[in-house]
Amino acid sequence: MTTATICTIGDEILIGQIVDTNSSLIASKLQLIGVKVVRMLSIADNREEIIQKLEAELSSVDIVITTGGLGPTKDDITKDALMELSGSIEYIRNEKQAAIIDRILSSRGLQRLESNLAQALVPDRAEIIPNRFGTAPIMVLRSKKGKGILYSMPGVPFETSNMLPDVLDDISRRFPLESIQHRSIMVYGLAESALSELIAPWEDNLPEGMHLAYLPNPLFGIKLRLSVYGGDRELSEKSLDRETKKISEILGNKIYATSESTLEEALGSILREKGRTLSAAESCTGGEIAHLITTVPGASDYFLGSVTSYAVSVKEKVLGVSHETIEKNGVVSSEVAAEMARGVRALTCSDYAVATTGLASLEPDRFNPGGTVWIGVDGPLGTRTLKRNYQNDRKRNIQRFAATALDFLRLYILEAESFDKQKIKHLC
Amino acid sequence: MTTATICTIGDEILIGQIVDTNSSLIASKLQLIGVKVVRMLSIADNREEIIQKLEAELSSVDIVITTGGLGPTKDDITKDALMELSGSIEYIRNEKQAAIIDRILSSRGLQRLESNLAQALVPDRAEIIPNRFGTAPIMVLRSKKGKGILYSMPGVPFETSNMLPDVLDDISRRFPLESIQHRSIMVYGLAESALSELIAPWEDNLPEGMHLAYLPNPLFGIKLRLSVYGGDRELSEKSLDRETKKISEILGNKIYATSESTLEEALGSILREKGRTLSAAESCTGGEIAHLITTVPGASDYFLGSVTSYAVSVKEKVLGVSHETIEKNGVVSSEVAAEMARGVRALTCSDYAVATTGLASLEPDRFNPGGTVWIGVDGPLGTRTLKRNYQNDRKRNIQRFAATALDFLRLYILEAESFDKQKIKHLC
Repeated sequence: MTTATICTIGDEILIGQIVDTNSSLIASKLQLIGVKVVRMLSIADNREEIIQKLEAELSSVDIVITTGGLGPTKDDITKDALMELSGSIEYIRNEKQAAIIDRILSSRGLQRLESNLAQALVPDRAEIIPNRFGTAPIMVLRSKKGKGILYSMPGVPFETSNMLPDVLDDISRRFPLESIQHRSIMVYGLAESALSELIAPWEDNLPEGMHLAYLPNPLFGIKLRLSVYGGDRELSEKSLDRETKKISEILGNKIYATSESTLEEALGSILREKGRTLSAAESCTGGEIAHLITTVPGASDYFLGSVTSYAVSVKEKVLGVSHETIEKNGVVSSEVAAEMARGVRALTCSDYAVATTGLASLEPDRFNPGGTVWIGVDGPLGTRTLKRNYQNDRKRNIQRFAATALDFLRLYILEAESFDKQKIKHLC
Repeated sequence: MTTATICTIGDEILIGQIVDTNSSLIASKLQLIGVKVVRMLSIADNREEIIQKLEAELSSVDIVITTGGLGPTKDDITKDALMELSGSIEYIRNEKQAAIIDRILSSRGLQRLESNLAQALVPDRAEIIPNRFGTAPIMVLRSKKGKGILYSMPGVPFETSNMLPDVLDDISRRFPLESIQHRSIMVYGLAESALSELIAPWEDNLPEGMHLAYLPNPLFGIKLRLSVYGGDRELSEKSLDRETKKISEILGNKIYATSESTLEEALGSILREKGRTLSAAESCTGGEIAHLITTVPGASDYFLGSVTSYAVSVKEKVLGVSHETIEKNGVVSSEVAAEMARGVRALTCSDYAVATTGLASLEPDRFNPGGTVWIGVDGPLGTRTLKRNYQNDRKRNIQRFAATALDFLRLYILEAESFDKQKIKHLC
């Protein structure tokens, strides 16, 4: 199997100033085209260290992808190190990259400085993939000694992620990678052990050459990934279709998507398809639900808005929650969640509404242990509520409350939309 | 200088399933106690690879900290590898950890299984730091060959972060670390180059032995870190106080905190101290501002709530923005930002209000280029607005809009609160 090492270069990672997200992204994409990442490495902006570590990796794996160390400032010395590593003699100017640099600078209304053009200078033995999203090109080269091939990419995450497809294409051309087809099946609302038990009979009978991986995540649930290695592409796709259909019959609407997707994207697709609108009333989630929904481009087609009712006065005055309901049941209660959902639905005239009230921190109130959330949903089927308790820290609890609310809402909408439309009354 | 390597162990990192946040956290804390991280490494759950790479690092640095690979399942074989690495002969049960395991399980209402207790078995040559937050203890050991000392920590981020202080204490006892004092000065609203020019005369005259680092971040601005190496602790603190005072005189309220802090924490401190309340009206930021404010524990003391007015109908009906204003100026305009701020302040009866309306994506509308935001603030000094344009992707633009709004609001509040309280009229 073709193997790879991912290496980030830069002091800012070693002092813990930034979290390296590039490596994880590159690793996940390499895996999808059938390259096995055997190591990740972060090293300093230090010439000897760069040469030594990269030489070692190039003797051990087929592909080394580096990110970072390519800026125009003095501390970025990766290009110098690659000069020596590749046995290059001089820098030559890459005209394609020079043209891109000119275009980028003029679009920003900036004058071209000598230091900008220096970004287009590359070691003579390097092949170049021009970087359309930044000034430093991607260099492809071999070491004088090792067997592997090295891709040097810029470290700005925006540039890394946008240029990665070009690098993956280049890898696919150079290496005899086995064709792999994948299918992601997104599941919410089942623990890993329960899911595994439910689908065991199906899993045990997967066709030969098809593999299943469980990728759990507290925020998006569990991603099941089916992979078929080798063989005819079209046949593999058909086989994946068949198995996806089978597992869909077992899990029903516990599956929220049969491709890479988030809960908020899946929810958005349903609302857009059905032409319905949504609003939210948030207490303990404090805006996180609205934030998630509006990170999806085009959310304005179905999301009308939300009220974050942190203070009791806002719950009563803006959402119309009754004072007596709060007095009698406490703020964190099924009754208040229900009235919040009904209140924001009436206020915004949306088809559906979701509401949360709870304790994000682990300190209890008079009625509930910390980590408790009540979720309310209102729509044409009436009001429904759900209670959950999570024992994470404040931030993580807020995220899990929001995900649970999105899924509870999704199931409600699926049920409502499955009825004869004539019989369903919408508010406005 | 004492050197360290951080090594994460586990296939889930190499396939890109999770982003490694432990390494960054550990690195930043090591740096603060004067340990230089020279490398980070992620390797697979592979016995030979673990032994070989850790041996190599232990011959090269003083400290190796590993995280992960300590779970009870078959694929976690780090403990076996450490058995061989340390020349241990047998596993012995650590009674302190066994007691913790019992306590954790009974608090969760679970029965103790054999696999749970196996977590308390450790190589005979390892010293143990009991893990109060999980079942796998921290093992401290030396290799048969190398000179360094190895700390094996669990990889669950909650356990890693909570147990890290114990590991740092142990390191401080074993290694002759130079004492270091730090001071963080949080700056918002200045580009790095402009900041550097402004403070150059001060920076050039820092006392001997005091160092300044710029740690920029698009979300929290720029963190300036002053460090004093060695010397008397009390004298260093006084010297840091003096320099902090000097730079505060230069930068004034561009500094939002003189200790580690976020904008939303700084804002919360001011509001709590002054006994004032806040509300928000969000369009393009879609709940992010409310979300940031409510991640601060105790935010309910000053944050009343917010309205996410994604639809024009919600802007008009809930916030009372006039139809004519929108018709005439467009939704993304100074006038609409102003009316939104006034509207949510009136609705919630808060002392201060902040509002955003803009284009998070890079597509333009009829009046504005993509990436434009108008921020409105309302309070006892009347309404003020601010326009900005950022050319990032949708998610990052939302974050930058929110940070800019929080800072604009902070500056307004500081000005308002500097006036004689008698002369300031609050709404409710």
